[in-house]
Amino acid sequence: MADGDDDVPLILTWDDATSGLLEEDENGAGNYDVVNNVVIPTPGAPDPRAQNSLRQSWEMNYQEAAIYLQEGENNDKFFTHPRSAHALSAYLFAHNHLFYVMELLTAVLLMLLSLSEAPAVPFLRLDVYIHATLELLALALVAFELGMKLRWLGFRTFIQHKRTMVKTCVLFLQFIEAIVVLVRQTSHLRVTRALRPIFLVDCRYCGAVRRNLRQIFQSLPPFIDILLLLLFFMVIFAILGFCLFSGNPADPYFSTLENSIVSLFVLLTTANFPDVMMPAYSKNRWSCIFFIVYLSIELYFIMNLLLAVVFDTFNGVEKMKFKSLLLHKRSAMEHAFQLLLSRQRPDGVSLKQFDGLMRFYRPRMTARDRFLTFKALNYSDATMLSLQDFYKFYEVIGLKWKARRSGEYWFDDLPRTAFLIFKGMNLLVKSKAFQYAMYLVVAINGIWILVETNMVNDGVSWTHVVPLSYIIFLTIYGIEVLLKITGLGPMTYFSSGWNLFDFSVTVFAFLGLIALAFDMEPFYFIVVLRPLQLLRLFKIKQRYRNVLDTMFELFPRMASLGLTLIIFYYSFAIVGMEFFAGVVYPNCCKNSTVADSYRQINVTIGNRTVLEEGYYYLNNFNNILSSFVTLFELTVVNNWYITMEGLTSETTHWTRLYFMTFYIVTMVVMTIIVAFILDAFVFRMNYSRKNREPLDDPEDEKGIVFETEVSQTEALQTLDLYKHTLGVTNLSSLQGMCVALERSGHSSLVFQGRRSRTKSDLSMKMYEEEIQEWYEEYSRTNLQPDETFHRELDSPEANASNSIN
Amino acid sequence: MADGDDDVPLILTWDDATSGLLEEDENGAGNYDVVNNVVIPTPGAPDPRAQNSLRQSWEMNYQEAAIYLQEGENNDKFFTHPRSAHALSAYLFAHNHLFYVMELLTAVLLMLLSLSEAPAVPFLRLDVYIHATLELLALALVAFELGMKLRWLGFRTFIQHKRTMVKTCVLFLQFIEAIVVLVRQTSHLRVTRALRPIFLVDCRYCGAVRRNLRQIFQSLPPFIDILLLLLFFMVIFAILGFCLFSGNPADPYFSTLENSIVSLFVLLTTANFPDVMMPAYSKNRWSCIFFIVYLSIELYFIMNLLLAVVFDTFNGVEKMKFKSLLLHKRSAMEHAFQLLLSRQRPDGVSLKQFDGLMRFYRPRMTARDRFLTFKALNYSDATMLSLQDFYKFYEVIGLKWKARRSGEYWFDDLPRTAFLIFKGMNLLVKSKAFQYAMYLVVAINGIWILVETNMVNDGVSWTHVVPLSYIIFLTIYGIEVLLKITGLGPMTYFSSGWNLFDFSVTVFAFLGLIALAFDMEPFYFIVVLRPLQLLRLFKIKQRYRNVLDTMFELFPRMASLGLTLIIFYYSFAIVGMEFFAGVVYPNCCKNSTVADSYRQINVTIGNRTVLEEGYYYLNNFNNILSSFVTLFELTVVNNWYITMEGLTSETTHWTRLYFMTFYIVTMVVMTIIVAFILDAFVFRMNYSRKNREPLDDPEDEKGIVFETEVSQTEALQTLDLYKHTLGVTNLSSLQGMCVALERSGHSSLVFQGRRSRTKSDLSMKMYEEEIQEWYEEYSRTNLQPDETFHRELDSPEANASNSIN
Repeated sequence: MADGDDDVPLILTWDDATSGLLEEDENGAGNYDVVNNVVIPTPGAPDPRAQNSLRQSWEMNYQEAAIYLQEGENNDKFFTHPRSAHALSAYLFAHNHLFYVMELLTAVLLMLLSLSEAPAVPFLRLDVYIHATLELLALALVAFELGMKLRWLGFRTFIQHKRTMVKTCVLFLQFIEAIVVLVRQTSHLRVTRALRPIFLVDCRYCGAVRRNLRQIFQSLPPFIDILLLLLFFMVIFAILGFCLFSGNPADPYFSTLENSIVSLFVLLTTANFPDVMMPAYSKNRWSCIFFIVYLSIELYFIMNLLLAVVFDTFNGVEKMKFKSLLLHKRSAMEHAFQLLLSRQRPDGVSLKQFDGLMRFYRPRMTARDRFLTFKALNYSDATMLSLQDFYKFYEVIGLKWKARRSGEYWFDDLPRTAFLIFKGMNLLVKSKAFQYAMYLVVAINGIWILVETNMVNDGVSWTHVVPLSYIIFLTIYGIEVLLKITGLGPMTYFSSGWNLFDFSVTVFAFLGLIALAFDMEPFYFIVVLRPLQLLRLFKIKQRYRNVLDTMFELFPRMASLGLTLIIFYYSFAIVGMEFFAGVVYPNCCKNSTVADSYRQINVTIGNRTVLEEGYYYLNNFNNILSSFVTLFELTVVNNWYITMEGLTSETTHWTRLYFMTFYIVTMVVMTIIVAFILDAFVFRMNYSRKNREPLDDPEDEKGIVFETEVSQTEALQTLDLYKHTLGVTNLSSLQGMCVALERSGHSSLVFQGRRSRTKSDLSMKMYEEEIQEWYEEYSRTNLQPDETFHRELDSPEANASNSIN
Repeated sequence: MADGDDDVPLILTWDDATSGLLEEDENGAGNYDVVNNVVIPTPGAPDPRAQNSLRQSWEMNYQEAAIYLQEGENNDKFFTHPRSAHALSAYLFAHNHLFYVMELLTAVLLMLLSLSEAPAVPFLRLDVYIHATLELLALALVAFELGMKLRWLGFRTFIQHKRTMVKTCVLFLQFIEAIVVLVRQTSHLRVTRALRPIFLVDCRYCGAVRRNLRQIFQSLPPFIDILLLLLFFMVIFAILGFCLFSGNPADPYFSTLENSIVSLFVLLTTANFPDVMMPAYSKNRWSCIFFIVYLSIELYFIMNLLLAVVFDTFNGVEKMKFKSLLLHKRSAMEHAFQLLLSRQRPDGVSLKQFDGLMRFYRPRMTARDRFLTFKALNYSDATMLSLQDFYKFYEVIGLKWKARRSGEYWFDDLPRTAFLIFKGMNLLVKSKAFQYAMYLVVAINGIWILVETNMVNDGVSWTHVVPLSYIIFLTIYGIEVLLKITGLGPMTYFSSGWNLFDFSVTVFAFLGLIALAFDMEPFYFIVVLRPLQLLRLFKIKQRYRNVLDTMFELFPRMASLGLTLIIFYYSFAIVGMEFFAGVVYPNCCKNSTVADSYRQINVTIGNRTVLEEGYYYLNNFNNILSSFVTLFELTVVNNWYITMEGLTSETTHWTRLYFMTFYIVTMVVMTIIVAFILDAFVFRMNYSRKNREPLDDPEDEKGIVFETEVSQTEALQTLDLYKHTLGVTNLSSLQGMCVALERSGHSSLVFQGRRSRTKSDLSMKMYEEEIQEWYEEYSRTNLQPDETFHRELDSPEANASNSIN
C-alpha cells in the first residue's frame, strides 16, 4: 500500500475551492496543470504550499463524498446538494444532531403549547402573554432554521422545494396570528393551529412519519374510488330506507332523508345496530332483510374490498419505495466513489481515501473499525476498492466490530475449579430441563395469581400485605437470573431480547416488593405488573417467538405509524376544541335522541328512585387531553354517534360533517395500518419459509454477520500507514488490535462485524430477482456515473417533482 | 380414419365383465386369446357373438373411463371407484342428478323441519306426530341413500370413509330420537338437531361448502395459537383491571374477576366501549391509559395478526388445494386414457373411442359437438389423440360450440335498406357519444330522485301518484334498450352481463309503473328499486368494472361461503332455541345491568312522562327465524352484550359461554371470508397486471375461446363414419353442420368454442411456473400410469386419509 502523498483527485469539488487552488497555483509553485477541472501535477519537487492546497482539496472531496453518502442514506434528493463552499457551511450547520434536536424541540414545543392555550388543561393554564411569547419565540427559531435552509439551498431551489414552501407559508400565517393574539391579549378562532404538526413532520427525525404520510396519500386514489362506491350504495339504501320506513312514527332513524343517510352512515360503522333496526323490525319482521342486505353489501363486502385495494396498492407502493431508495443509494455511492478516485488511480479507492471519507462520514468511528470496514468491503482482496466493492457500503457501515473470541465461554481464563463450576452452571442453564422447569414455575405462578385474585374479591386490602407466594416466586426468578448471568456471562445474557425482558420484569417485581414492604403507596402499580412474567410462556412455541420477534422488528415502523395517527388526532383535536369546547355538560342535549347518555338525575321507575348517571359529558373537547381521549373513542367507533348527536344537538347539523370526516380519515389510516401489519407479517412468514430459517433456539441471535481476517503483518503495516502517511493521531484502537494479535499467539485474528437485521435486509432477500432487473434497467437508462453526476446536479427541475421525501 | 370394428381394448375393465367375455370365448368362437387380462383377437373371420361381446367390453371401458373423468372433475378419490359390475349398478344409481336432487331435498327438508318443531314459527306450527313422521320419512330416505353407498363402496371402504361413518352415526342417533319423540308425543331437549346440517354438507351439490369447511379447519391451528395469545393478554389485563378498578363501587364492570374478564372480552369486540371505561375515567382521568393500551394491543395489533395468519394460511391452503385438484384430474385423465387404448393402437385414442367415452360422460352432447371437441383436443392434427392432447380434456369439455359467423352483424342477410338502418343503429349504440349521453341521463335521474325524495318529507303519499319524471326517464331507458337490442342483435345484447342488468332494471321499473298506475299495493316495493339504475354509472371507470366483474366471478364462492355461515348459524340457532326459547320478554331482566334495553314502561323524568321502549326482547331465540336474526345481530357484534347479559340474567352464568363461543366461531368464519375476499381480489388484480388485460371496452366479453376448422370433406367423412361404423342414430347435428358448410359456399368453416373463465383458469395462469414443477414432481414420484392405476385401486388405505372431500 504505497499511497503517495501527491495523489491528485480525479474530480475537484466545489468551484470556489478549485479556484482557490488555481489562485495558489498562479501565485505559487505551478506544479499543477488544471485541465478540464482536473488537477494534474507537473513533474518536479513537491512544494509545501501546493501540498497543503492538495490536502485541502482532498478534504473537500472527502467531505462532499460523505455528504453524498448521507444524502443516499437519508433519501435526500441530490438537487438539494450544497453546490458551493458558501452553501457548504450552511449545510454543515444545518446537518448535525444539535440542529436536528433543536428543530424537533421547537416543533414539539409549538405543539405542546395547545396544552396551555385557551381551552387549557386546568393545571397547565398559562396567561395569554406567556404562551403567545413562547409561541413567537418558537416561531422565530423555525424562521431561523428556514433561513439556514435558504442559505444552503439557494433561492431557486428553495422555492422549488414544495414542503419547505408550505412550511414557510404556514410559518408566516402563524407569526401574524401570534402577534395578533399578543396584541389583543385574547385568543381568536385559531383553526390554523391545526397546521402546527407540519413543523414536526418536516423535522429530520420524522422522516418515517413523512414516508407514512406519502404512502397514505399514494394509497388514496383507489381508496377514494371504493369509498365512492360505498357512499353510493349508502345513498341508494338511504332512499330505499326512507321510502320503506318513514311511514312509521316510532322510527326516528328514517324520518327524513338526512336522518336516513346519517343512520346508514352510522350503521356502516355498526355503532347503532341493532337499535336502528328495532322500530322497523318491531312493526314488520321482514324489514330485517333490508338491514341484512345493507350490512352484507356494505360492511362485509365493500369494506373488505377497501382493505383489499389498499393492501394491494400498499404492496405496490412499498416495493416502489424500496426500489427508488435502493437506486438512490446506488447513485449516491457512485457519486461518492467518483470523488474518491485520484488521477493516479482512476479505478479504485485506496484505504487512504476511504479513511478520509470515513472521518467525515462517521467521525466517532475508531481507526481500527474504519480499517476493518475497508477490509469487509474489499471482497476481491485487492489493494483498492472497485465500484462493485463500494456498492456494499451501506451494508457494512452499521457493523459493530469485535474480535471473534477464541474461547467459547467468558470464564475460559479462570482457574480450573472456578471454570468447572461455571461450566456446570452454563450446562445447567442451557439444558432443556432447566428451561422447561422455569416454564413450569411461570405457569404455576400464573395459576396462583389467577386463583389468588379470584379469592380476594374486594381488591383493595390485598395490596397492603406481601403475600408469601410473591416472595417465593420472586426468589425463584431471582435465582434464575443470577444463574443465567453467571452461566452465560453478562454480555451473552444481555444480548438476548428475551433475557432482557426476563431481567426487567424480575427487577420490577423486586421493586414492587420493596414498595409493598415499605408501604410506598404511589408505587403499587408496579405490583400490578406481576402477571407480565407470564409472557415468558410464549417462548415455548415457535410461532409465538416468530410473532414476537416480528413485532420487535416492526416496532419502529409501528411507532412511526402511531405518530402519524397522533398528528391527525392533533389537527382534529385543535379543530374540535375551537368549535366544541365547553359545549357538553351533565344534563345537556335534552332535545337529542341520546339525552339519556348525558343525563345525571334521579329517575323514578315505578316506585324506586335511582341515580341514572350518563357519563358521556366526559367525552368532550374541553382541552387537548380530553379531545385526544374523545378522538380515540371515536376511532374505536362503538357508540361514536352518541358523542356526535350530543354535540350536534347543542350546535348545528354541520357538526356531523366533522365527525364523519374524522371517521373516514381514521378509516383510511387504520386500513393502512391493517394493510401494513398484514403485509409485514405475510412478508416475514414468506421470508422464513423461503429461507427455511431454523429459528429453533429461542436464545438464538439473528442478525447480519461479516467476518474479516487480519494478519499480524497487515496490522503492523496499517498501523504504520496510519501513523506516518495519514497523520491520524488517535491510534489507540489500532494499537490495541496489534497487541491483541500478539497476545493471541496466532498469526492472524478474525474480526466479526454484527448488526441486527432490518426490514431493508429482508426486502433485499425477497426481491432478489427483481433487484437485479432494477439495476440493469438503472444502468441502461442512466448515463455513465460521472456524466450522471453533472447532469443531475445541473437539473434540479428534473428532480423537483420528487422533492417531498 | 379406418377404424376397424375389431379393435380390442388394451385393458379390460371390471373382472366379471371380463370373465363373461372369457366364458363366451370358451363356449364359442375362440377367436380371442386372453393374455394377462388383455384380449388379443386370433386371426379368423369375425364371429357375431364375439363381436357383440367385444362391443360390450368396449362399452364397459367407455363407462369406466367416463366415471374416472367424473371422479377427476368432482375430486372424488379413486379408492371409492366402483370395482365390480355389481358395484357399478349401485354407483350409476347413486350418481345422477335425480339422486342428487333427492339427496339435497331430503337434507333441506330435515333442516326446514325446525321451522315447525317445538318452538315453531307461529304460522308454520305442526303437530308433533306430523313433523316427527316427516322426520322419520326423511331419515329413512337418508338411510336408503347410505345403503346405496354401502352397496357401491363395499363394506371395507364404507367404514374407512370418515365422512360417511359420521353421517351414519348421526343418522342412527336422529332415528332413535325421532322415534322417542313420536312415542312420547312431545319434544325433549334435542340439541342433536344441531347436527342436521351434516346431511346437507354431505350432498353432492354442496361440495363447495365441504371444501370451505375443510379450509376453515385447516386454517384453525395457527388461528388457535394466536387466539390463545389474545385470551392470554385478556386474562392478564383482567387481573390488572380488577386490581386497579375494583375499589370503585360505581364501576360494575370490574367488580369481580369474572366480570373483569367478561368486560374485557366484550371490550375486545368494542361493543361496550366507551361505557366500560367511563366509571373509572370519571374517577381518574389517567385510567384511560389502561383501556387505550388494552385496545391497541388486542384490537389493533393481535386481531390484525389473526387476520394476517389466517390470510397467509389461507393462501397456502388455496394453492395446495389447487395443486392436489390439478394432479387428481391429471391422474383421472391418465386412467381414462388407458381404458380407451386398443390393442391395435396402444398410443392414441381414435375418434371412435372418444365418441364412445363422450356418450357416457356427456349423454346430452350432440354428435357434432363430440366431434368438434375431439378436433379441439387434437392439437397435433394426427388421426389419434396422444396422452398430451388428452391432458387438455377438462379445458375443452365445457365449451359451447358455434360456427363463427361469416358476417359481422345479425342483420347482414336483410335487404339493403333495412341493413343500412340497422347498421346506423349499430353504429349509434356503439358510439361513445351515445354511451356518455346515457350516463348523463342516469346521473340526472339520480340527482332527480335525490331531490324529489328530499322534498317529499312524509314519504307515504308520493307512492300513490306516478311522477312525470318517472315516466320520462323510463321512456328514455326503454328506447335505449330497444335501440340496443335492434342495433346489436338480441344474441349479442343478452350475452353481456351489463346489458342483462340494464334490461332487468328497466323491466322492473316498467312493472313498478304498472303497479303504480293500477294501484297494486303489494308491488310498491318494485318502485323502490328505481335507484338501482344508478348502478350503471359504475361502468364508466375501469376500476369499478374490474371490481364488479371480479364480484360476479367470485359470486359462486361467496355464495358457498354464505351457505357455510348459514350452516353454523343453524347449529347455533338450534342450541339457542333449546336453551333460551321464551326466556326474554318485555320488562324482563330487571336484575341485569341492561334492564333498560328490555324496559317498556312509562317513566317519569322530572315532571314529564314518556314511554321508554326497549326493543331488545325482540332479539330472542323463540323460533328459528328470530334466532337467525339474533345471530346475525351477534355477528355484527355491536351491542351483542345486551342480548348476552339479558339472557344471562334470566338463566345462568354459563349462557355467556354460548355467546362467547359463537363470537369466536363467527370470528373464524368472518376472518376467513375477509381473507378470501382479500386473496381473491389481490389475486385478480395481480392477474390483470401480469397479463396486461386490455379491459377497455365495457361491452367486451371475456372468456376462453377455442377455434377449430372443419373442411367439407372432413365433415362428410365424419358423417359417414358416425352413420356406418358407430351406429349412432341421432345425427341431425352433424347433418346440420354439413348443410351449413354447403350453404356457406366455403370449403371449410371455423367453429368457435366458448366458455366463461373460472377461478381455475386464473389459477392456471398465476401458478404457471409452479404447475410445471408439480407435473415433473408428479411424474417422478408416480409410477407409470397403468401401474399407478392398479396400485391405487388396490390400496384404498393409502388414500383413506384424504377421504373427506
